[in-house]
Amino acid sequence: MAKLFLSVLSFLLLFGLSFAVRGGSWQQGECQIRSINAQEPSYTIQAEGGVTEFWDYKNEQFQCAGVSIRRHRIQPRGLLLPSLSQRPCSSLCRERFGRGMFGMMVSGCPETYESPQQSQQSREERSQRFRDRHQKVEQCEQGEIVAIPAGAAHWVYNDCDEELVLVVLHDNANNANQLDRNPRSFLLAGNPERGQEQQQYGQHGTRRGEEHQQLGNVFRGFDVRTLSEVFMVDQETARKLQGHNDERGHIITVQRGLQVIRPPQKGEEYGRRDEEPYSVAGANGLEETICSAKMRENLDKASRADVYNPRAGRFSTVNSLTLPILGFLRLSAARGVLYRNAIMSPHWYVNAHSIIYVTRGESRMQIVNHRGQAVFDGQVREGQVVVVPHNFAVVKQAGEQGFEWVAFNTNDNAMINTLSGRTSAIRGLPRDVVANAYQISREEAERLKFSRRETMIFSGSGRGRVASA
Amino acid sequence: MAKLFLSVLSFLLLFGLSFAVRGGSWQQGECQIRSINAQEPSYTIQAEGGVTEFWDYKNEQFQCAGVSIRRHRIQPRGLLLPSLSQRPCSSLCRERFGRGMFGMMVSGCPETYESPQQSQQSREERSQRFRDRHQKVEQCEQGEIVAIPAGAAHWVYNDCDEELVLVVLHDNANNANQLDRNPRSFLLAGNPERGQEQQQYGQHGTRRGEEHQQLGNVFRGFDVRTLSEVFMVDQETARKLQGHNDERGHIITVQRGLQVIRPPQKGEEYGRRDEEPYSVAGANGLEETICSAKMRENLDKASRADVYNPRAGRFSTVNSLTLPILGFLRLSAARGVLYRNAIMSPHWYVNAHSIIYVTRGESRMQIVNHRGQAVFDGQVREGQVVVVPHNFAVVKQAGEQGFEWVAFNTNDNAMINTLSGRTSAIRGLPRDVVANAYQISREEAERLKFSRRETMIFSGSGRGRVASA
Amino acid sequence: MAKLFLSVLSFLLLFGLSFAVRGGSWQQGECQIRSINAQEPSYTIQAEGGVTEFWDYKNEQFQCAGVSIRRHRIQPRGLLLPSLSQRPCSSLCRERFGRGMFGMMVSGCPETYESPQQSQQSREERSQRFRDRHQKVEQCEQGEIVAIPAGAAHWVYNDCDEELVLVVLHDNANNANQLDRNPRSFLLAGNPERGQEQQQYGQHGTRRGEEHQQLGNVFRGFDVRTLSEVFMVDQETARKLQGHNDERGHIITVQRGLQVIRPPQKGEEYGRRDEEPYSVAGANGLEETICSAKMRENLDKASRADVYNPRAGRFSTVNSLTLPILGFLRLSAARGVLYRNAIMSPHWYVNAHSIIYVTRGESRMQIVNHRGQAVFDGQVREGQVVVVPHNFAVVKQAGEQGFEWVAFNTNDNAMINTLSGRTSAIRGLPRDVVANAYQISREEAERLKFSRRETMIFSGSGRGRVASA
Repeated sequence: MAKLFLSVLSFLLLFGLSFAVRGGSWQQGECQIRSINAQEPSYTIQAEGGVTEFWDYKNEQFQCAGVSIRRHRIQPRGLLLPSLSQRPCSSLCRERFGRGMFGMMVSGCPETYESPQQSQQSREERSQRFRDRHQKVEQCEQGEIVAIPAGAAHWVYNDCDEELVLVVLHDNANNANQLDRNPRSFLLAGNPERGQEQQQYGQHGTRRGEEHQQLGNVFRGFDVRTLSEVFMVDQETARKLQGHNDERGHIITVQRGLQVIRPPQKGEEYGRRDEEPYSVAGANGLEETICSAKMRENLDKASRADVYNPRAGRFSTVNSLTLPILGFLRLSAARGVLYRNAIMSPHWYVNAHSIIYVTRGESRMQIVNHRGQAVFDGQVREGQVVVVPHNFAVVKQAGEQGFEWVAFNTNDNAMINTLSGRTSAIRGLPRDVVANAYQISREEAERLKFSRRETMIFSGSGRGRVASA
Repeated sequence: MAKLFLSVLSFLLLFGLSFAVRGGSWQQGECQIRSINAQEPSYTIQAEGGVTEFWDYKNEQFQCAGVSIRRHRIQPRGLLLPSLSQRPCSSLCRERFGRGMFGMMVSGCPETYESPQQSQQSREERSQRFRDRHQKVEQCEQGEIVAIPAGAAHWVYNDCDEELVLVVLHDNANNANQLDRNPRSFLLAGNPERGQEQQQYGQHGTRRGEEHQQLGNVFRGFDVRTLSEVFMVDQETARKLQGHNDERGHIITVQRGLQVIRPPQKGEEYGRRDEEPYSVAGANGLEETICSAKMRENLDKASRADVYNPRAGRFSTVNSLTLPILGFLRLSAARGVLYRNAIMSPHWYVNAHSIIYVTRGESRMQIVNHRGQAVFDGQVREGQVVVVPHNFAVVKQAGEQGFEWVAFNTNDNAMINTLSGRTSAIRGLPRDVVANAYQISREEAERLKFSRRETMIFSGSGRGRVASA
Repeated sequence: MAKLFLSVLSFLLLFGLSFAVRGGSWQQGECQIRSINAQEPSYTIQAEGGVTEFWDYKNEQFQCAGVSIRRHRIQPRGLLLPSLSQRPCSSLCRERFGRGMFGMMVSGCPETYESPQQSQQSREERSQRFRDRHQKVEQCEQGEIVAIPAGAAHWVYNDCDEELVLVVLHDNANNANQLDRNPRSFLLAGNPERGQEQQQYGQHGTRRGEEHQQLGNVFRGFDVRTLSEVFMVDQETARKLQGHNDERGHIITVQRGLQVIRPPQKGEEYGRRDEEPYSVAGANGLEETICSAKMRENLDKASRADVYNPRAGRFSTVNSLTLPILGFLRLSAARGVLYRNAIMSPHWYVNAHSIIYVTRGESRMQIVNHRGQAVFDGQVREGQVVVVPHNFAVVKQAGEQGFEWVAFNTNDNAMINTLSGRTSAIRGLPRDVVANAYQISREEAERLKFSRRETMIFSGSGRGRVASA
């Protein structure tokens, strides 16, 4: 499984939300981060069609950053049931072959994917045929970011033969969240968190146990007669909406495969059209609205790199300038690849926390706070999460296998400041300031400023890495 | 009184404030709303010219939403003394006949309402005449929204023969409020809260008692000699500014009626001009500034409805697109009318709390949280307030007499998502997702999606309503 | 020293930060300010080249306003080492003669100040010559405001013969700060707070003692081998970056004076060019980027006054309309000068806290809360700080020597409302409202509205002032 997982990661979705401004986070308690750890999931909820792993959102580093993280592992033909996120979230997923698929319901947007309705048919005939109308369905490709406004319901379906893994970041401190900071998902269907729960950390056990009583999707709270009337269906159907006896959990398996209306895939034959009808998008006059806003950006392609060093690796970012909807979400993301022994320049984010999810390989990371203390110095491995708080300095040194990660940043235009290299703060200082500040000669100051000519991704000898404990 | 009150409600003002962004509310404590109640005022402050009723702002649902609510009942010729609100607030008022009137002082805006100054007159003559100059005075009409920037002083006068009722919402969590979340009003005149206080709930009694010591308007805190110098008046007048012996409270009665400069009313004869001078607005070159920004919007007219179903009712909203100043205030409002037995589709707000004030009739309401638990299922009646938290789903079923309400939403562009009907989330889902999610047949899924063809306001049988406890 | 200090103050820098919105401040605890005091620094940190004095940020008034204040006193040839502020800050400084100088490193901005590189020279020769390239260096002049984006590293050098004093305001409640509200500075060099510390208030002693363990600049937290590799320098130089044995503190003395590349000063001879090379700014095509945004505004010149009364004084403001970068910083500033016995009209800020730093003279100040209680009534003197909370009313009456101050306001467009004078709230009220509200005659109401014809800065008799305790 671990092996499969390794290759499965690398496709990334960034769900977010509109009209949001990050609140002054963690205003109450202190956020005196003295120590940071690489985190792995602390508990798991099993469902019919997959499993969801949760990082402990009560952990100080997630609390300070105001985020929570979870990872969905969706089996082939697994369907993550429609839910709505209360706050911006980012997910990262990848499947090796084939297609993942997700749908998003934006209120008031029309159902633009529809099957043709032949008016000549008898009513009898029509009811036998595949006949539907729904909102846009998106295909996942490797390395994409997708932004979904908070409160928009969405579902995900694994349409391929390998496990689909999504890493989801919720931005609980986002001001679009008007409730407290606890992570919440509102489900439209299914019986959430009913499956077997494995909790690795004991401390929040009682709490969660209590929370799990009487859980259910949003229809569970309504009266059956009300539902029956509201949907104009019989009470039996209304009762099914509530899913009382549904033991499948929040990820279900679609036995015969999910049939939806969508455009043909690249490589699909024209001949398939008859079997799978698709809408002629572009004909409904709504192309320029939020209903058809661009939600995805592919960060995984090497050709898309924003910083590229053929001997060291690459670094790509997506922000509100490249994907405008991120301006509403107040989130951005970056994708980094370090080759063997390469180094990412010591840097800090000027206006954001950075939540790093390791997608491949291993690296030594050092994180330093404003007191010059190392709050983290250790190895991070695939599948781990590390939070680099706002303004804390960090350096990464890839191991023998290289290192790949995705960073979710809590600002739609996260600004990076490097300490070394061509665009660094040290370069901006006059030589005399450097010489006096560090009590070194002018020649040493010159070397300090100008020796490292690379910009952000440095080739390395591996010495620093080997030196780690 | 109750009967009068019934008809008196329905005019609505929405006061707000500029450059504000809602803070991530209730960041500290948890906001685990397990139960919501329809609230009535918990204490009352009596004054000469009327009474103000306060909802208990310490109540969890108001704390979670970050708002507080009060209701002014102003008697004929009652004058709510000038005060300034520290945060956005919305008020709702209506008078049956005649006119209410309010004034707002925006700093630096000129006094554009002035009486003509005949230069030929002797000084003696002039001082006998009505002679004044002040900022704009607005007339209230039924069903209007008025937005007033926070910190702008304002007063209200009841110029008709019936009680004038205003329901005021303060948005304490708004970021334009830079102090804590306790509701505060700064008074420019009068002796606030000096009247008889009736407190219905005992729990905050001690607290409030303490707060009431030494209350007074803002001039009370200044030295009399300072005031005398600052206004260049004698100390006796300066002392009157402080209102030490004023027992009239925050609403006073104007014995001979209030005389202000204002344009003639519709229906007023041209002949009245001589008696009541008015300014020729439009001649001062300031029309396009904030000083003359549009502050009001009428939501009450049926012809103004945004959603209209002749068999079920109507729904109207005002947001920053219809009243631009709301963009600064980060608040919006909606007005709903349900006819007998009609239903408002189950829905949630994507980005706002919704504070519902019932203006007429009765309804069953069900509110469901993210766990599928009903946090409220009961009847709400005229004069009650219910908070629907962000993302919680709600359904309303009007009683035999119909149901009317106003909702104040804590976002200037509150987005609504319905669960049923033509624009609902369920409609946006592919049929197969619905069928698999709820374990129903494709035919049932089709019925679920397409049976209810109305958009948001549904005609109803009354069955759901009767079913309520 | 006090005398020198007196004249030394009056130059002001306003550091700030981008994409920031003030959080709903002090959301948790109550902010029931019952009493305000004029504050002086509570502890001091001594360094080689100067001293930094801190106001106690745990004080309620600073906590409510969400700010902290410190004052740097930099000796001649003192260099405040490069640091980066995590949040918006404002500093106020002045030197009597000569020049102060500061540099700011904005990430990714080019080094636009460079010495000419004669290509004909041999490598040997070049290394002997002054040869450097760095980002822009700014000259301080009296009365300027400078805005620096948060997270941008900056340094300050005292290039004249008198002490240079900077008063720095940090806006900890600004939303660009994503950590908690404790003031933090990240140092790039030096050994902060190692000098002798004099603590005047005992209450936070233990706390601070603990904090001071293991302090250091940001390089201290990194591994020496990592630094060596990252900068491509030997380990000895890398170790010097960490400054382990550096006893000079955060302000050092540059023995032979600091040599940087900069344009000639006004009054410098053309002949000096050869000695001090300068860049031809304007030739690099980057003039319109953030890298060359205008960061400074001079508030000290009388000719710049926004409000001017030849008998009473003047008042100048800088906000996002006059210095656009303040729009990102969400801060503004004002400079006031009252002549002998003059009065600043009672006023309140509609949307900001106002933090007043007294630069010269003495004044009686009265601050009144929303209950009409005087929370402060006393004398304030040069070097003291007073916080006027959002919406609290304040009046200032200068003493015999006049009164000068700078106010930092926590909104980029702080709006002022006066209670008396030509643009006051009282003037905006209809005469009848005034007469009824204060139970005075119409004639008295007219006098109250129209007697004081000055706008904001009033000439005074000195009576009010003398009356103070």
